[in-house]
Amino acid sequence: MTALAASFDTAMARSQGAVEGQLDALLPRAEGPEARVFEAMRYAVLVGGKRFRPFLVCESAKLFGVHSGSALRAAAAVECVHTYSLVHDDLPCMDDDELRRGQPTVHRKFDEATAVLAGDALLTQAFEILADESTHELGEIRVELVRRLAEAAGARGMVGGQMIDLASEGHTLDIGAITRLQRLKTGALIAWSCEAGAVLGRASDELHHALHAYAHDLGLAYQIADDLLDVEGEAGVVGKATGKDADAGKATFVSILGVERARAQARMLSDQAIQHLDLFDEKADLLREAARFVINRRN
Amino acid sequence: MTALAASFDTAMARSQGAVEGQLDALLPRAEGPEARVFEAMRYAVLVGGKRFRPFLVCESAKLFGVHSGSALRAAAAVECVHTYSLVHDDLPCMDDDELRRGQPTVHRKFDEATAVLAGDALLTQAFEILADESTHELGEIRVELVRRLAEAAGARGMVGGQMIDLASEGHTLDIGAITRLQRLKTGALIAWSCEAGAVLGRASDELHHALHAYAHDLGLAYQIADDLLDVEGEAGVVGKATGKDADAGKATFVSILGVERARAQARMLSDQAIQHLDLFDEKADLLREAARFVINRRN
Repeated sequence: MTALAASFDTAMARSQGAVEGQLDALLPRAEGPEARVFEAMRYAVLVGGKRFRPFLVCESAKLFGVHSGSALRAAAAVECVHTYSLVHDDLPCMDDDELRRGQPTVHRKFDEATAVLAGDALLTQAFEILADESTHELGEIRVELVRRLAEAAGARGMVGGQMIDLASEGHTLDIGAITRLQRLKTGALIAWSCEAGAVLGRASDELHHALHAYAHDLGLAYQIADDLLDVEGEAGVVGKATGKDADAGKATFVSILGVERARAQARMLSDQAIQHLDLFDEKADLLREAARFVINRRN
Repeated sequence: MTALAASFDTAMARSQGAVEGQLDALLPRAEGPEARVFEAMRYAVLVGGKRFRPFLVCESAKLFGVHSGSALRAAAAVECVHTYSLVHDDLPCMDDDELRRGQPTVHRKFDEATAVLAGDALLTQAFEILADESTHELGEIRVELVRRLAEAAGARGMVGGQMIDLASEGHTLDIGAITRLQRLKTGALIAWSCEAGAVLGRASDELHHALHAYAHDLGLAYQIADDLLDVEGEAGVVGKATGKDADAGKATFVSILGVERARAQARMLSDQAIQHLDLFDEKADLLREAARFVINRRN
């Protein structure tokens, strides 16, 4: 492991701890007869995870000297949205998954109705977190985060991507269609995470666009790596069932390109993502390292 | 029918038309492989409905001379949230309803996965609508609408109410518990609707509180009337199955108070709601009439 990679691991671990503390503080505690939905929300969010999107928020915020309290709230918000999407995607009527991060999925641990409601509440909570004045003193900034998150998460973003994914089971997608699917399904939220720092820091258009381009390539590289893990990973390490895409007859980057070309493509995208950061100094080193991390991760 | 009631019906019909035009314009059109979720969103929203919450938004906005374009966008947003809650509540794992407004529910017309996603997307769309600068020129105002809507719709509002409702099937609730349940499940969104005009119009605290108190009593009167319809209404007129609460062993205002006392309570709340509007002149007449409407409606 290089020194940079080691410091990346340390930075990720530190960021994880900070984000989990923030999430723990922001998520409502169980009380009253509605306690079950609070418990399910906390279970879904606090069961673990790489906290990769929050890391991107915090690192992009550092580029512009954004107060860490603001960044952590935005980071918690995007993790709530990411978690809600996993809770709903795991439902029996969707991907019907029993394990997530090595633990029972929310509808297995609780029940389906609670899982639907906990997902709904987590999505809603994300907007509540962003809109609260603790996130930034200026309403203009908070509402811009809200607007962009709604766009990234909705039917023209993440939800649209999930719809395409469900609709395309058993169909052959070409590389253009699968790229668009992933740009919506996972790319949009990753892009929001990288751009949140620019919004909070009122970055110039030029720097904003550089982060957008970085996020675009990073998101695709991340997804290709995910597809490779589904083919090559061990369920015990990945923390969820592997080989599911092939079993479901789903087209993935790997099923279309093959393992070798998919790996080369991920590497190319990772390099390209790093080049988009040329406008930034060494403050962007951990984002550069993140682009290397996504294609080398084991879970 | 009194002259006031007739003009109320006319005003409701006009408001319905305007809100449906706005919703039609704001909801994404079907295109691309994700078309199915767009279709389901449009189906769920445009299948009909009283548009009562949008009416409250528009009427509360008129009290403060708010631009009708702003009010209509806020009205569309709350209708998206209301509709999403119906789509998810109708799911097999929740209330398992086959009919809504006399038409197949979304998961019957499409499928369960699409219904989950369409609900998710409608909730998200509400925040996107509010956050867009077309809603109000000031970010501070838009983000205040977002913050309050998230609070009203989330685990400490509507979703919490639905969780209590599900958890209390087969349990005996007292009048305090059922009042709290309904304040969360339906009251919070009705309150948002009445207060949206005050937020958009930057009303004084005094006027804001008057609308809040009005909304509180209106919301409870509305729910008691709903429980009465479930007992006394005909399915053909109500547009959904009736007698469901009793079949499900659900405690309602009617099961606890009996029909006569429930009706008297609704009337008392309606009168009280109207009194809270004493600070306003004749511009509030349609809101006064709305308080009479909710306890006399047949669907």
